[in-house]
Amino acid sequence: MSSIADTSTDKQPLIGIIMGSSSDWDIMKHAADMLSDFGVPHETLVISAHRMPADMAQYGAQAVRRGLRGIIAGAGGAAHLPGMMAALTPVPVYGVPVPSRYLRGEDSLLSIVQMPKGVPVATFAIGEAGAANAALHAIACMAVTEPALRDKLDAFRARQTEAARNMVVPPPGNDQTA
Amino acid sequence: MSSIADTSTDKQPLIGIIMGSSSDWDIMKHAADMLSDFGVPHETLVISAHRMPADMAQYGAQAVRRGLRGIIAGAGGAAHLPGMMAALTPVPVYGVPVPSRYLRGEDSLLSIVQMPKGVPVATFAIGEAGAANAALHAIACMAVTEPALRDKLDAFRARQTEAARNMVVPPPGNDQTA
Amino acid sequence: MSSIADTSTDKQPLIGIIMGSSSDWDIMKHAADMLSDFGVPHETLVISAHRMPADMAQYGAQAVRRGLRGIIAGAGGAAHLPGMMAALTPVPVYGVPVPSRYLRGEDSLLSIVQMPKGVPVATFAIGEAGAANAALHAIACMAVTEPALRDKLDAFRARQTEAARNMVVPPPGNDQTA
Amino acid sequence: MSSIADTSTDKQPLIGIIMGSSSDWDIMKHAADMLSDFGVPHETLVISAHRMPADMAQYGAQAVRRGLRGIIAGAGGAAHLPGMMAALTPVPVYGVPVPSRYLRGEDSLLSIVQMPKGVPVATFAIGEAGAANAALHAIACMAVTEPALRDKLDAFRARQTEAARNMVVPPPGNDQTA
Amino acid sequence: MSSIADTSTDKQPLIGIIMGSSSDWDIMKHAADMLSDFGVPHETLVISAHRMPADMAQYGAQAVRRGLRGIIAGAGGAAHLPGMMAALTPVPVYGVPVPSRYLRGEDSLLSIVQMPKGVPVATFAIGEAGAANAALHAIACMAVTEPALRDKLDAFRARQTEAARNMVVPPPGNDQTA
Amino acid sequence: MSSIADTSTDKQPLIGIIMGSSSDWDIMKHAADMLSDFGVPHETLVISAHRMPADMAQYGAQAVRRGLRGIIAGAGGAAHLPGMMAALTPVPVYGVPVPSRYLRGEDSLLSIVQMPKGVPVATFAIGEAGAANAALHAIACMAVTEPALRDKLDAFRARQTEAARNMVVPPPGNDQTA
Amino acid sequence: MSSIADTSTDKQPLIGIIMGSSSDWDIMKHAADMLSDFGVPHETLVISAHRMPADMAQYGAQAVRRGLRGIIAGAGGAAHLPGMMAALTPVPVYGVPVPSRYLRGEDSLLSIVQMPKGVPVATFAIGEAGAANAALHAIACMAVTEPALRDKLDAFRARQTEAARNMVVPPPGNDQTA
Amino acid sequence: MSSIADTSTDKQPLIGIIMGSSSDWDIMKHAADMLSDFGVPHETLVISAHRMPADMAQYGAQAVRRGLRGIIAGAGGAAHLPGMMAALTPVPVYGVPVPSRYLRGEDSLLSIVQMPKGVPVATFAIGEAGAANAALHAIACMAVTEPALRDKLDAFRARQTEAARNMVVPPPGNDQTA
Repeated sequence: MSSIADTSTDKQPLIGIIMGSSSDWDIMKHAADMLSDFGVPHETLVISAHRMPADMAQYGAQAVRRGLRGIIAGAGGAAHLPGMMAALTPVPVYGVPVPSRYLRGEDSLLSIVQMPKGVPVATFAIGEAGAANAALHAIACMAVTEPALRDKLDAFRARQTEAARNMVVPPPGNDQTA
Repeated sequence: MSSIADTSTDKQPLIGIIMGSSSDWDIMKHAADMLSDFGVPHETLVISAHRMPADMAQYGAQAVRRGLRGIIAGAGGAAHLPGMMAALTPVPVYGVPVPSRYLRGEDSLLSIVQMPKGVPVATFAIGEAGAANAALHAIACMAVTEPALRDKLDAFRARQTEAARNMVVPPPGNDQTA
Repeated sequence: MSSIADTSTDKQPLIGIIMGSSSDWDIMKHAADMLSDFGVPHETLVISAHRMPADMAQYGAQAVRRGLRGIIAGAGGAAHLPGMMAALTPVPVYGVPVPSRYLRGEDSLLSIVQMPKGVPVATFAIGEAGAANAALHAIACMAVTEPALRDKLDAFRARQTEAARNMVVPPPGNDQTA
Repeated sequence: MSSIADTSTDKQPLIGIIMGSSSDWDIMKHAADMLSDFGVPHETLVISAHRMPADMAQYGAQAVRRGLRGIIAGAGGAAHLPGMMAALTPVPVYGVPVPSRYLRGEDSLLSIVQMPKGVPVATFAIGEAGAANAALHAIACMAVTEPALRDKLDAFRARQTEAARNMVVPPPGNDQTA
Repeated sequence: MSSIADTSTDKQPLIGIIMGSSSDWDIMKHAADMLSDFGVPHETLVISAHRMPADMAQYGAQAVRRGLRGIIAGAGGAAHLPGMMAALTPVPVYGVPVPSRYLRGEDSLLSIVQMPKGVPVATFAIGEAGAANAALHAIACMAVTEPALRDKLDAFRARQTEAARNMVVPPPGNDQTA
Repeated sequence: MSSIADTSTDKQPLIGIIMGSSSDWDIMKHAADMLSDFGVPHETLVISAHRMPADMAQYGAQAVRRGLRGIIAGAGGAAHLPGMMAALTPVPVYGVPVPSRYLRGEDSLLSIVQMPKGVPVATFAIGEAGAANAALHAIACMAVTEPALRDKLDAFRARQTEAARNMVVPPPGNDQTA
Repeated sequence: MSSIADTSTDKQPLIGIIMGSSSDWDIMKHAADMLSDFGVPHETLVISAHRMPADMAQYGAQAVRRGLRGIIAGAGGAAHLPGMMAALTPVPVYGVPVPSRYLRGEDSLLSIVQMPKGVPVATFAIGEAGAANAALHAIACMAVTEPALRDKLDAFRARQTEAARNMVVPPPGNDQTA
Repeated sequence: MSSIADTSTDKQPLIGIIMGSSSDWDIMKHAADMLSDFGVPHETLVISAHRMPADMAQYGAQAVRRGLRGIIAGAGGAAHLPGMMAALTPVPVYGVPVPSRYLRGEDSLLSIVQMPKGVPVATFAIGEAGAANAALHAIACMAVTEPALRDKLDAFRARQTEAARNMVVPPPGNDQTA
């Protein structure tokens, strides 16, 4: 967290994408890509709950004032970043379980989703799908009160449905005879 | 889903709390109670994905028009209600894994959280805590643009912190001598 | 689901093989191959529960009228397609858990098999074996009233037994001395 | 398996319900009850794969000749009855994982569902729901060619949907104020 | 954490026993009892990572200065207290997975033990045994340089061995004849 | 292990039944009962791997000389007794996973069965069934060279088969009408 | 099982190594190699419980008469071969869980080890180590009454201990400086 | 354990790093490297609980006399080395679950962490992170009474925090445009 600057766009970030290590980027970039596709200003930072607890606390303390409308937090193993960020700010936190080396993200998932009553983390699937969906959910929350974003979301979903409808099996060129 | 009426307040519901069976109520009432505590108008209905798929589709199709700003869906076992509702409406869906008889909600959790890229369900802890937290997260999303709700949320969190700070161990009257 | 045409044979399909994405084909083709081996007319389509819910509902609504005698549905992760199809039609549904990236199909299996009382999905093994066996089970159900198919099934099982009986260990050419 | 007699009705049984021990009855009776509700002649027997392997082989060998159209097999722990019965007869086998004392049926489920390619067992949920659904699925398979049974199945599903639609939460008399 | 006072003895505490909620006391008292048995001054406090993050940070920041030689932290579910305390102070942290309602502490265990490289938490068994053992391990660490404590530890282990050696099976009065 | 005396019969014990604690007796007595039923001389002792490692080593060192033909070892949690005994003597070791409080014996099972190449522990089911079966397996091993024991084993199995064959469902008196 | 011939030595086999498919050979050869190292006559055959149930029954029925003193059975997934063989013969059965494609042998392990009271299968570790150890355990059982085999076993264990004692870390040539 | 010599430094070792096989070195070297980085004298040895139980007992018996202040023990599968060493010496034992071939260390973790009350093993994460953290925790315990080591630990943590703070995402050169 060398500096809290908007690393992605010139506009004031609405969503913060934070992760425990730069090695989480391959997963978390799917959240950033989705926000970029929707034109939602966002920032991407490494904030390690375990190695940078003071920075984490500061980030949480400033989240409201900085105008963040959501924080997407990814971490793996004993994944404490999403839950701690949820403890540090009333801004909604979206948790992404990053796959771990040996337990493939089962530890990450349980560490994020099993929060006690009173401090929620909205949790998504392990890995790439979860990162993209955390962004989509944050977008959907904002779209409730922003018609332009709702239109984009509707268009996204329509395109997605169309793409699925155009899938053909067996794949063309794959011959199968009955 | 005999009728989509606001069963809880006189105001137009902002949040729909739906569940697969009336037997889920013991868990899901924790979501309703939380929304009631915050004065958020909501409705509570049984919509079974597997026994009432047409009603489910209709509920999803009307969610935007009816002004819902979030849908909290609880289900157990092969829990399809949250994910299907997310497929049926762009309104944000919050999923609550209801504990199952033999697998204690592990099946419910995986059936809800492991959604594919493109159709997110924000998932919370198994059981009571998850139901309450789904409501709290929906509130937090709305609070981003509604200062009055933010104030209530801040007060809730302050009370919660105070309650934790007042906890004493060993409990008073529990004598322990070193 | 660009069109519900018999993609495999000229005859009216008796079995529908549906899957959530074209990426499921590598698994699901084992169902199609088995049906082809038995000369059972079938169709293969992508129907995504989450991205094409209306198409899914339509497919389910027409299944009886179209003369389908079984639907083999494969999906991975939060696998809702088999269970939802079972909710949409009285035609028997055979579920195939497609292996997921991080949890290897444990999530798929639980999402498919743990259906509530009243809406069954006949579930098979994770992956290729499950796809082939779903087809074999559908064939066995039809064979109960169709002697010609029963003969083919008996022959298949006899060949299978013979192939197993001819297996030799250590494999020839693999020398082992005691 | 003191005698293969129709223990339930005077008609020739169409479905055999077998289980590894009389202690499985509390679960498996949900299959028998469902078949009774639909008027499907059936028999109920204890056949232990591990303690009565010869009887099991005999039962399998006679299944086709005796006119069985399906065999519902329940077992717990290292549950081999469904898979072995599927090896012994081409009659479709429906497997029900009976909850085990310490592992709650996880062992039963995997022992039943993970069959190798070539010998399918249609598997259902752990416990009561699975037993009822195995019966329902067998009924649905027969209903494909028997209009009267299809009518009963349609009526069952309509009643089931109606019952779900009539569920009200909070339950009447349960006061909740917002 | 109404006040950081030595709640157990008059001496300056050497070990802090902290837990996320007063409901964890039934488990964590086994740590306190063990320290009391060895005459190790300690304090017991509720510090919730999620509801009292600022208090948690303060407690960590003061741990060295206050002379703590170890911190035993218990928590359940998404158990972040041990790992966060380890991030906040170089004082050794001993983690106790408290059993959770639905997952029996599997979530607690993974949330505590799977810490990333650089920030260790010494983790013990789920529940009562783990709490007692966390205390015993902290005692053993101090005993390395404190002969009096080593003597007590040796005596404890000798008594424990003697108690096991005196166990008789079948229990006296339980008649068994061969 | 106050004394290695034959606690069950006057004859020299052939099988040693050892367990980590007297609290394991409720499970392990099923092994003792089975041996008693077959008239196999045996001894029952508490030997804790963790609290009595020297006694454990001594027991292992004397096992051959004392004429033991098998050692049945039960333990729970981090269950090291069976594997360590297997390391200490060439006498065959039969391991029984005793159910643990929170993980129901999953930890016990893996701790016992996953032995490295070179030091086998023959492992049986979690709990009562596993204890009885460990005894039965040890009996079967001895029966290979002892015709009298083989006769008893054959009789046992015949009775067991007969008992299963006599099971009737629905249980008599349990009325069920189709 | 094209023929029950001693495929490994000229002597009458004492141990039968059976497996569900020739694809299990890579695992099961570790059992054969171990028996060969000890000079124990054995046979290796493919006997599929699901594809060759009649051959399986015949093999079990002849096991005593053929002089087998143990049967090592390996299988993967819904692994029924070991348990069914144990039901078919009083000859001791040693089960080897073969790793499965998606669940890595967890299904195989539970399908083999969780046998009901009365029909034991001595179970070993998943994979190569389990195959070798099943052979070693069978050898140990025979060694109890055969001094020559006991001597070989003692020598094997001494060599094994010596090999472990000669292990050096860091490995020579691996430079590490403190 | 060909000889208990300080294989790493000229100084008397303070920490023993032991492991069940030389194949564990790739994981356990992360413990050795960490101790080397802090200049803590240590030794590294292979001590197999199952193949070298007498050496293990001797090592444990001498640990206090030899001045060891901690023993880091790594093992995989049925991992008994850490727990048995804890039974053999009052010197604190730090357990490292080495990943196993098929279960990825879940068996190792449970075998190490689930110790019974009275004999603690401080357990760390599966694999490399756990090995490094076991060393760090042992260092932290010693640092409590050794200011020079505390200074090194503080410096380590400061560097670690700085390294995390300098992480930038997207990685430089990775272009992403919003």
